[in-house]
Amino acid sequence: MKIVRFSHQGTTSYGLLEGSSIAVLSGSPFEKIEKTGKVVPLDAVRVLAPVAPSKLVCVGLNYTLHAEESGVPVPEEPMLFMCAPSAIIADGEQIQLDNADDRIDFEAEIGIVVGRRARNVAASDAGDYIFGYTCANDVSNRVLQKKDGQFTRAKSFDTYKPVGPVIETDLDPDNVDIKLWQNGELRQSSNTNDMIFPIARILEFVSGIMTLEPGDLIITGTPSGVGPMASGDEIVIEIEKIGRLHSRVA
Amino acid sequence: MKIVRFSHQGTTSYGLLEGSSIAVLSGSPFEKIEKTGKVVPLDAVRVLAPVAPSKLVCVGLNYTLHAEESGVPVPEEPMLFMCAPSAIIADGEQIQLDNADDRIDFEAEIGIVVGRRARNVAASDAGDYIFGYTCANDVSNRVLQKKDGQFTRAKSFDTYKPVGPVIETDLDPDNVDIKLWQNGELRQSSNTNDMIFPIARILEFVSGIMTLEPGDLIITGTPSGVGPMASGDEIVIEIEKIGRLHSRVA
Repeated sequence: MKIVRFSHQGTTSYGLLEGSSIAVLSGSPFEKIEKTGKVVPLDAVRVLAPVAPSKLVCVGLNYTLHAEESGVPVPEEPMLFMCAPSAIIADGEQIQLDNADDRIDFEAEIGIVVGRRARNVAASDAGDYIFGYTCANDVSNRVLQKKDGQFTRAKSFDTYKPVGPVIETDLDPDNVDIKLWQNGELRQSSNTNDMIFPIARILEFVSGIMTLEPGDLIITGTPSGVGPMASGDEIVIEIEKIGRLHSRVA
Repeated sequence: MKIVRFSHQGTTSYGLLEGSSIAVLSGSPFEKIEKTGKVVPLDAVRVLAPVAPSKLVCVGLNYTLHAEESGVPVPEEPMLFMCAPSAIIADGEQIQLDNADDRIDFEAEIGIVVGRRARNVAASDAGDYIFGYTCANDVSNRVLQKKDGQFTRAKSFDTYKPVGPVIETDLDPDNVDIKLWQNGELRQSSNTNDMIFPIARILEFVSGIMTLEPGDLIITGTPSGVGPMASGDEIVIEIEKIGRLHSRVA
């Protein structure tokens, strides 16, 4: 299923995306998937980021080739940091660069959407706690990232986390293509099978630290090919079987 | 005013602490302070952490003497990181060490509670956006902090952020004593006038990155005297005019 969150006639709802229509759901899909019977056309709604998480957890350096291009050793454990959930924007929204003179990079990532409260979950049980997967862009100011050491500021500016357009609930996350185009040119092209720590291990690791809540989002690192963005750029991230996330740099 | 958040007969409310009684408020104090007329005794309620923030932003190395004891240069700008809001516990609750063999330190800090949505706020206007101040303990696993480089894991374990007991809304935050006792022995004793970046500058800096929401919490760094905790320890943090935050290490 492809789950969308949207605003329509002043109300925020979740729905099932069925072609160009949305079957409206009652309440939170993390509780149960229950159709209201109401259907609205996709082009009549404003699509929102599919989650409004209580926590936005990020994994650094999780693809072998990206670790190599960054000139750092492959980590022994997932390298975690957190970003401000207020940085999240939806499909089609604009990225506002904090400083056009700095190098500010795109980073295509697959995001894990938590479905149930999770603490100390074994990797073998991770699937029971994951609701689905979405596309994310972990926009990063490289000047501030290097200057600060801590990654939070460089990656938490408002609009620096495009997420969406949908949550795909039926997916083998360990073998999907992940691609990013900048102004139509392919910049990142990999597969999640190049991940150093696979999805289930990440859920195990993070839930071994903190209690995860339904709707929490974990973005899982970017493959090689990251590069700088400039005003006017069109960025498209595609993850196989999930869909395409579009952003324009203001 | 001293604002408490509490649970009573299955309901979570805010109230004004008046001696040993709580004057119950209607709704969120960030909207308006309106008494319901109902009064409950403090000892009849369960005091909760005074905020359930959408973001828990942390400042590192913000006291001159603590920067010196940490052996690092005084930073040119506030050094930010974020912790999981799920780590927050209330006054009187227990800290659960993630690994008793690691060095896990206490860090007494004053916390800023945001009162209004804030973005790009000048330091001179910061007071208009701050609701009040509270006590916090930024519990930190030093082994993981050093190993990871990023501070998030070391400081985000469940129970690693005792916060409370109240939000004091009437306070000059730039000149209050901040103290921490471990099993009755004074370990930290400083004043916020030793801060490298004062409260208003921190609010300006953070709101220059991200949109802050009512109830968001910024903890502002710890003075010198940090040290390791062990099972059974009683930790008391006192900030002048706010009150005392009590924790026991499980």
